[in-house]
Amino acid sequence: MREAIALSRANVREGKGGPFAAIVVKNGIVLARGTNLVTSTNDPTAHAEIVAIREACRALGSFQLDGCDIYTSCEPCPMCLGAIYWARPRSVYFANTRDDAAAIGFDDRFICDEFSVAHNERKIPMQQLLREEAFEAFREWRAASNKVPY
Amino acid sequence: MREAIALSRANVREGKGGPFAAIVVKNGIVLARGTNLVTSTNDPTAHAEIVAIREACRALGSFQLDGCDIYTSCEPCPMCLGAIYWARPRSVYFANTRDDAAAIGFDDRFICDEFSVAHNERKIPMQQLLREEAFEAFREWRAASNKVPY
Repeated sequence: MREAIALSRANVREGKGGPFAAIVVKNGIVLARGTNLVTSTNDPTAHAEIVAIREACRALGSFQLDGCDIYTSCEPCPMCLGAIYWARPRSVYFANTRDDAAAIGFDDRFICDEFSVAHNERKIPMQQLLREEAFEAFREWRAASNKVPY
Repeated sequence: MREAIALSRANVREGKGGPFAAIVVKNGIVLARGTNLVTSTNDPTAHAEIVAIREACRALGSFQLDGCDIYTSCEPCPMCLGAIYWARPRSVYFANTRDDAAAIGFDDRFICDEFSVAHNERKIPMQQLLREEAFEAFREWRAASNKVPY
């Protein structure tokens, strides 16, 4: 965790993005390090955890982080928590809390609240179209013999 | 939306990943197309929306999707909804629902429920460490003159 914290401070000094860093460790070995690169790479998904998870999966040649631990300098936002559940590491350690992040201008708590708001009343409105046509892809997936479930 | 649906079906046929596709449109022009590439690229974050958002931001040279609409063949998972809120498009259109996705084995609803579960009781346990040391990065961010807020 001390290394993640040091990376988060360096990220601010170097102007690469927000004060966040994450490290993925397996069997005592660091597989990947990530820092927040949103503004420096024009990628709104380049949060520290996402950067580190993608890099660790590349290192492992797998889309799952079996037996890995993630050390992140701040409690994950909803996007990153989602990514963590899809990557399935063993456990997550964090330092700063979501309240700490909100206090410096990174307020993401509302994102999860949006799940229980009606689609057309969300801050970014959502609308359903053509569900019957789209469901054909799901039927094909169900029937596909070449699929890799995950 | 019909193009997104066609891409989602092609993605299954080509064995690239799950039956999901997304398109980002601005002023009637398609900026980016994405399909689910999780298993073919070993990237658990490569959901259709994330792939399309990253590509659209590259095309725009911006970390925000001002005035853009996203057409996704399925209602976004918590990770992708988070990414959408960070990218700030104008609106989102979807076809299949989260219940449809759960019915073919992509059940992500529990992820948002995890936010209200105690850290140590989550399916992937979380534990806090070294908050005081980590908060120093947040103090530095607050004081930084070179920062790009987002």
